[in-house]
Amino acid sequence: MSDSVKRLAVLGSTGSIGRQTLDVVRALPDRFRVVGLAAGKNIALLAEQINEFRPEFVSYAPGNNEGKEVPAELAGSVRQFISLEDMACHSQADMVVIATSGKMGLAPTLAAVKAGKNVALANKESLVMAGEIIIKEAERSGAQVLPVDSEHSAIWQCLEGEKQKASRIILTASGGPFAHYSPAQLASVTVEQALEHPSWRMGRKVTIDSATLMNKGLEVIEAHWLFHMPVDSIDVLVHPQSIIHSMVEFIDGSIKAQLSYPDMRLPIQYALSYPERLPNPRLPRVDWSKINSLTFQPPDLAAFPCLGLAIEAGKRGGTCPAALCAADEVAVELFLSRRIGFVDIAEFVGRVLAQHQVIANPALEEIMEADAWAREKMLKITGGDS
Amino acid sequence: MSDSVKRLAVLGSTGSIGRQTLDVVRALPDRFRVVGLAAGKNIALLAEQINEFRPEFVSYAPGNNEGKEVPAELAGSVRQFISLEDMACHSQADMVVIATSGKMGLAPTLAAVKAGKNVALANKESLVMAGEIIIKEAERSGAQVLPVDSEHSAIWQCLEGEKQKASRIILTASGGPFAHYSPAQLASVTVEQALEHPSWRMGRKVTIDSATLMNKGLEVIEAHWLFHMPVDSIDVLVHPQSIIHSMVEFIDGSIKAQLSYPDMRLPIQYALSYPERLPNPRLPRVDWSKINSLTFQPPDLAAFPCLGLAIEAGKRGGTCPAALCAADEVAVELFLSRRIGFVDIAEFVGRVLAQHQVIANPALEEIMEADAWAREKMLKITGGDS
Repeated sequence: MSDSVKRLAVLGSTGSIGRQTLDVVRALPDRFRVVGLAAGKNIALLAEQINEFRPEFVSYAPGNNEGKEVPAELAGSVRQFISLEDMACHSQADMVVIATSGKMGLAPTLAAVKAGKNVALANKESLVMAGEIIIKEAERSGAQVLPVDSEHSAIWQCLEGEKQKASRIILTASGGPFAHYSPAQLASVTVEQALEHPSWRMGRKVTIDSATLMNKGLEVIEAHWLFHMPVDSIDVLVHPQSIIHSMVEFIDGSIKAQLSYPDMRLPIQYALSYPERLPNPRLPRVDWSKINSLTFQPPDLAAFPCLGLAIEAGKRGGTCPAALCAADEVAVELFLSRRIGFVDIAEFVGRVLAQHQVIANPALEEIMEADAWAREKMLKITGGDS
Repeated sequence: MSDSVKRLAVLGSTGSIGRQTLDVVRALPDRFRVVGLAAGKNIALLAEQINEFRPEFVSYAPGNNEGKEVPAELAGSVRQFISLEDMACHSQADMVVIATSGKMGLAPTLAAVKAGKNVALANKESLVMAGEIIIKEAERSGAQVLPVDSEHSAIWQCLEGEKQKASRIILTASGGPFAHYSPAQLASVTVEQALEHPSWRMGRKVTIDSATLMNKGLEVIEAHWLFHMPVDSIDVLVHPQSIIHSMVEFIDGSIKAQLSYPDMRLPIQYALSYPERLPNPRLPRVDWSKINSLTFQPPDLAAFPCLGLAIEAGKRGGTCPAALCAADEVAVELFLSRRIGFVDIAEFVGRVLAQHQVIANPALEEIMEADAWAREKMLKITGGDS
């Protein structure tokens, strides 16, 4: 194995980002090697991935595998089974890709940055919940937290080489599938409609969050922590074509933008290859003869109250974003299982947040308590615990 | 005077770029000081500028002032009068701003880079004519050649901090005032129409060059030298709003763009303040609530043959771009004095170039000979010498 090969542990390998991460590795086998794979649900696909990538160690369930029975599909494998946290700080991994969705990404992210491991972070919930703790731990250990979200990758690319802080971040948003819906139309949105995103193919949770614009709100908080930028200096701009992935304004008024077709493999690869860029024939090139127009409009905060709720939670700070995340995660699950409607997501998340007692500069335990409190409160409000 | 004050010699101070350079100095008096001013024609304005900025030395005519009579407006001034070339390498100047138009910028540009002076270069003709010589001299002396053209400033800003070469440059073009004109309409374009640029306020020569798209072709050659990029890897894209000032594509397919309202003071200030950015309340901020759409289209090479002529000259290399520049400079003068029509500019420049015998890797004398040959040839073809 050459010195220039980066050894990756991919957590959440069977999800959307995990699968696209493995596609980047497939295209660049001389530069990346998968030494660890972790997945929680899709054991059949995990077995295929193990067969193809031959990792040194595997995690097949959320949390610790110890004492659990090895699933039949993996039983023939001679690999070592370890916990997510152990994988996140394994000495054989040069970089940890956190592609798990929701709250589950927090513990391995923290374990990785504490161990000084560079993290390619696709899991925005961990930064939203515990951004202050993660960034402080990373500064202490020297670990790099490299964003995988296309918007944050864009901001990061635009900031590269700049000697001074940005004065403003302009986060672009596709606007989701319902950008032009009336309140009545929004009230009758079905699960199937909400799962059809116009420009990005993503996992189910983030697709629903994109439809409510909660995702963009979480990204505001994520950008706040990643780029040390006040929430007030982060604007959201709807850009339906999803070609400009975000913009940064500098103190002289100059703006830089990063553009590409919407394909998550590009920001994933940038995080993996940084500080290099690598040629990858699988990545599409923008054909400007086919792009007539890029359009922009302000977000409709009245129609999509989740965005305002998230920005407000970001400003309140402390445990508030963790409560937001937890309430949203439960609400999205309830919507996907058809127990609440689309507009109920914002309604119920708003009610939970209104009752949340924010603790400033929280310890991890207080964040987890806020998470548990918000989940319970959401189930109570929606009758989902009955 | 503090150490952080950069001392500037501004050559071409009464022209459009020169005046805007002084406006940047006016806004940032703690950071910049004008030690030299040079102008050739507008002596009244030069006298005003001397009065306001109190430079140490002045040049009031093209070439050497020695032996010439000091104009009455400047006679009261106690300043030192020197030649353009002496000003370009004066020990008291930290940076030389070359804002003269046309061929006249070449000699002082060369003098400055030979002397190791950093040059903020708005004069594209010098790079088009003698790019290879200027860049080599700058590499030898350690002088920086910092672009002032908005497009090249955009490319430069996008490349800043990137560790690898770009794979493609996408030069944007407003398309000029006649982007949608029919051949018949183009044939009857008047001087007044051609001097009305839709988005940029510039000098007369560059405004006509923008209307014929010759300017964009010269910029392709300029980008070729500034960024060591093959002419074939530089695309031109019409973008009428002039908000995206150019783009750079990297080997992974990622594109960066630089955006701002069309205001030359921003790229001027960036060149002056580099590697810093400075806050300047006079520079406008993009208001995204007012930008609905950015549009793009390929350039119409049939309607605007000057663009193709320039790209072709860039590919032929050697003395060809110098012949192009000279032929165009004369043709534009003839058009402005109403001796030839708008479409004749391309027609006659094409004829001159078709007869040009290219000398590869030319010395400066050969470049000047090609320049003189093309001017004479153009006058002969057009009957302009009669």
